[in-house]
Amino acid sequence: VANFWNNLKDVVVKGFEMGRADPRKIVFSAKMGLALVLISFLIFWKEPIKELSSHSVWAILTVVVVFEFSIGATLSKGFNRGLGTLSAGGLALGTAQLCQLAGDWEESVVIVSVFITGFCATYAKLYPTFKPYEYGFRVFLLTYCFIMVSGYQKGDFLHTAITRFLLIALGAGVSLVVNICIYPIWAGEDLHNLVAKNFTRVADSLEGCISGYLHCVEYKRVPSKILTYQASDDPVYSGYRSAVESTSQEDALLGFAIWEPPHGPYKTLQYPWKNYVKVGGSLRHCAFMVMALHGCILSEIQSPAERRLVFRDELQKTGNAGAKVLREIGSKLKRMEKLGTVDILDEVHEAAENLQKKIDQKSYLLVNSESWEIGKPAIVLEDPQDFQTTDSDEKRFPEFKSRSETVLDLSSLQGNWDFSKPIMDDKFNNGESFNKNNSAASNQEESKTYESASVLSLATFASLLIEFVARLQNLVDSFEELSIKANFKEPNDEVVAE
Amino acid sequence: VANFWNNLKDVVVKGFEMGRADPRKIVFSAKMGLALVLISFLIFWKEPIKELSSHSVWAILTVVVVFEFSIGATLSKGFNRGLGTLSAGGLALGTAQLCQLAGDWEESVVIVSVFITGFCATYAKLYPTFKPYEYGFRVFLLTYCFIMVSGYQKGDFLHTAITRFLLIALGAGVSLVVNICIYPIWAGEDLHNLVAKNFTRVADSLEGCISGYLHCVEYKRVPSKILTYQASDDPVYSGYRSAVESTSQEDALLGFAIWEPPHGPYKTLQYPWKNYVKVGGSLRHCAFMVMALHGCILSEIQSPAERRLVFRDELQKTGNAGAKVLREIGSKLKRMEKLGTVDILDEVHEAAENLQKKIDQKSYLLVNSESWEIGKPAIVLEDPQDFQTTDSDEKRFPEFKSRSETVLDLSSLQGNWDFSKPIMDDKFNNGESFNKNNSAASNQEESKTYESASVLSLATFASLLIEFVARLQNLVDSFEELSIKANFKEPNDEVVAE
Repeated sequence: VANFWNNLKDVVVKGFEMGRADPRKIVFSAKMGLALVLISFLIFWKEPIKELSSHSVWAILTVVVVFEFSIGATLSKGFNRGLGTLSAGGLALGTAQLCQLAGDWEESVVIVSVFITGFCATYAKLYPTFKPYEYGFRVFLLTYCFIMVSGYQKGDFLHTAITRFLLIALGAGVSLVVNICIYPIWAGEDLHNLVAKNFTRVADSLEGCISGYLHCVEYKRVPSKILTYQASDDPVYSGYRSAVESTSQEDALLGFAIWEPPHGPYKTLQYPWKNYVKVGGSLRHCAFMVMALHGCILSEIQSPAERRLVFRDELQKTGNAGAKVLREIGSKLKRMEKLGTVDILDEVHEAAENLQKKIDQKSYLLVNSESWEIGKPAIVLEDPQDFQTTDSDEKRFPEFKSRSETVLDLSSLQGNWDFSKPIMDDKFNNGESFNKNNSAASNQEESKTYESASVLSLATFASLLIEFVARLQNLVDSFEELSIKANFKEPNDEVVAE
Repeated sequence: VANFWNNLKDVVVKGFEMGRADPRKIVFSAKMGLALVLISFLIFWKEPIKELSSHSVWAILTVVVVFEFSIGATLSKGFNRGLGTLSAGGLALGTAQLCQLAGDWEESVVIVSVFITGFCATYAKLYPTFKPYEYGFRVFLLTYCFIMVSGYQKGDFLHTAITRFLLIALGAGVSLVVNICIYPIWAGEDLHNLVAKNFTRVADSLEGCISGYLHCVEYKRVPSKILTYQASDDPVYSGYRSAVESTSQEDALLGFAIWEPPHGPYKTLQYPWKNYVKVGGSLRHCAFMVMALHGCILSEIQSPAERRLVFRDELQKTGNAGAKVLREIGSKLKRMEKLGTVDILDEVHEAAENLQKKIDQKSYLLVNSESWEIGKPAIVLEDPQDFQTTDSDEKRFPEFKSRSETVLDLSSLQGNWDFSKPIMDDKFNNGESFNKNNSAASNQEESKTYESASVLSLATFASLLIEFVARLQNLVDSFEELSIKANFKEPNDEVVAE
């Protein structure tokens, strides 16, 4: 019992927090209650028209079903319901005429028509193009069957159809008035905020990746949630994941937003909501590169810490500049401002170019010359001065160096490569102790191969970062398209100067 | 008019094709028609109990709403509906007692209780944990309001509640019997097939990437659908995209599959459907690497064709072996077989190791030594024999070489790097002709930087491929977990030997 009370307390506390985090949810619930009260009241009050109120279920049903969180969803459902009811009513009345002609066969005609209609409407519903109108087909079926069955019993199809339609109209009217007139909640605004928020999330992820890589963060054991692409609270991972995963959410919001009339800051008719989704898609295209960067951290093959240090400043600068661009576009999107005259990508392009030049100058650090068939280059590669950084953090790193080497644990590698460290399976290690001495020579060779792979991984990280920068152009382009189509305001000069 | 007829013909033809591609859709539609006919028939037949049939809407409504494509969805909706109706009925009867105590204030109590219930149920519905029961809350609200309003009018709550419940039970009964007993469609089977199919798709994508890369396929203009992550019919792209995008579909099917009783080949109670989703997630984790590989093809920075040729055999073998592993696991999943005793990853690991060794030996081809601060190595790097392949396709490639160099088009690069080729904006090219001559010197330097970047891109491609291979282990592990939990059959020996 105590357990039950604790659970209940938990739920109440969490529910309370949900309300504080998004007060719109409280408002919406209150609106729903109000709409139900209104419709009950109307039914009580209309008691004189006895027949109407005895079918009050239609009005209540309509309110419960049509009343959705956002205005767009309410309108789209209301439209579906209206269209479904009207067309079903028309068809049912037509069939009714046919029935009366059929005479004795009336009942059979009703049954056959129900089957045919049920078959056709259900089949059409499964057709991909009609997916958004799925609800309309349901209403169509319900109304058609009800009018046929109920009208047949009473022998008056028209009357049945009209009373139902009046009650549905009443329910829909109450829903729409309450939902639109009192504190409307717009799907468009949600879409706007979602896309803007994803910019920040990807930027956070990018910074997390860069700093994680430079600080040689290693996952002792990669969380299995990441390996199976489930939600996890790793901050770097959840940042880009949310951007990648919001595809379906964006599409759903788009489907509702296009139903909404111009409102608030979205004044133009035919507001380009589609372009929001496009910007979201371009952001996703960049987020995939952040994901690949994170893959370098997750990977078992890690480049030595001291070589990362050589490119430290350039990687850091490029990452920061990239994150800054994302944040800036995100906040401009949020404030609905156009890009300024200054090219927003200048800084990040410069940083990427510097990174590239540095790589160009020091690319001998990215490969392992010991195994070259053409012989080693004539100079000593590991000249200590290459690893000297003028940075004050210098002392922080020796520990990483040693750790990253022990982690490699090369002696346990057998005839085939150890690709499986994160989830090491025992059967691959059978006879390990036996082989250990015999295969010392081949291990030596492998360890060199491994070393060269680990060194190349730094090149990969840098290349991916540069590719990320290259993809920003596409993001800027789709943002510009949106800002022109949606008629964003000219940027504030101060902001540009800042 | 002719246009209309053509459109209609189109729709009919496409509808027909949909039916041929998935006959279950036709069966399902016919089942829906049958259920509706049955319920209509029952209502006609029950005419003696006049009152029941005058509220027939409840039975029809239940059939229309509960009858879903898969058994799991039908059961879960039926459960929601039952639970919602029962709890709402109980609560309504309780409130009704309260109302009768309230005497004159009865109407106010009804109104207030409707508001409070509406508020609480709607608020609870928005709570993320209760998301799967969203439909139950709707039914709860509908039933509660209806019983309160209608019972209040007639002064007999209990009777109202019971007749409704009987009709709903009738509708649900008909739906369940028809849907389960006649050609059942299982969500679990869909999940099984979806996951298995994604293996093939990712494998196709991987092979497409490798062969595209080796044949130096370049996108003259990257399709904007890829840049904004929308569906596109590019075969390589759509392959991994479908695996990445099926997250929500897998989750939805999982939600239904856990409702289904043991059936067909899925005999154990508590069948591990969750592990299917896990395998799907691990596959996605691999698919992200294929996506990154494809990114190397989409990228503007392309490595020279003749250097790719050097690693041609190794890349090809690793890619083929990787795709083979994916296909094999996919078909084992489909046939519900355990992995054999032979390590499925042996071949691909060996191929990856060879690729890595080759890189190790020839890593001088992956960097550009001209700008090394430490001076050039003492040997001529571009020894013609490095590019000699013993392959017969040798003659196919010179054309690619020349093309890949013209594509670079280095002379048009300005002060900052040309990251924007795919969607080149005109304003960035202003004054190009003016700069062209003046900045010849700086262009020279940049073109070198560019060259080294393009050479490194090959290293990136190889690293990503190796990382893909490394991720296969995780996939094999989650498949093994599934095959043990789901009690897959032991592999057929012939298949292993084959």
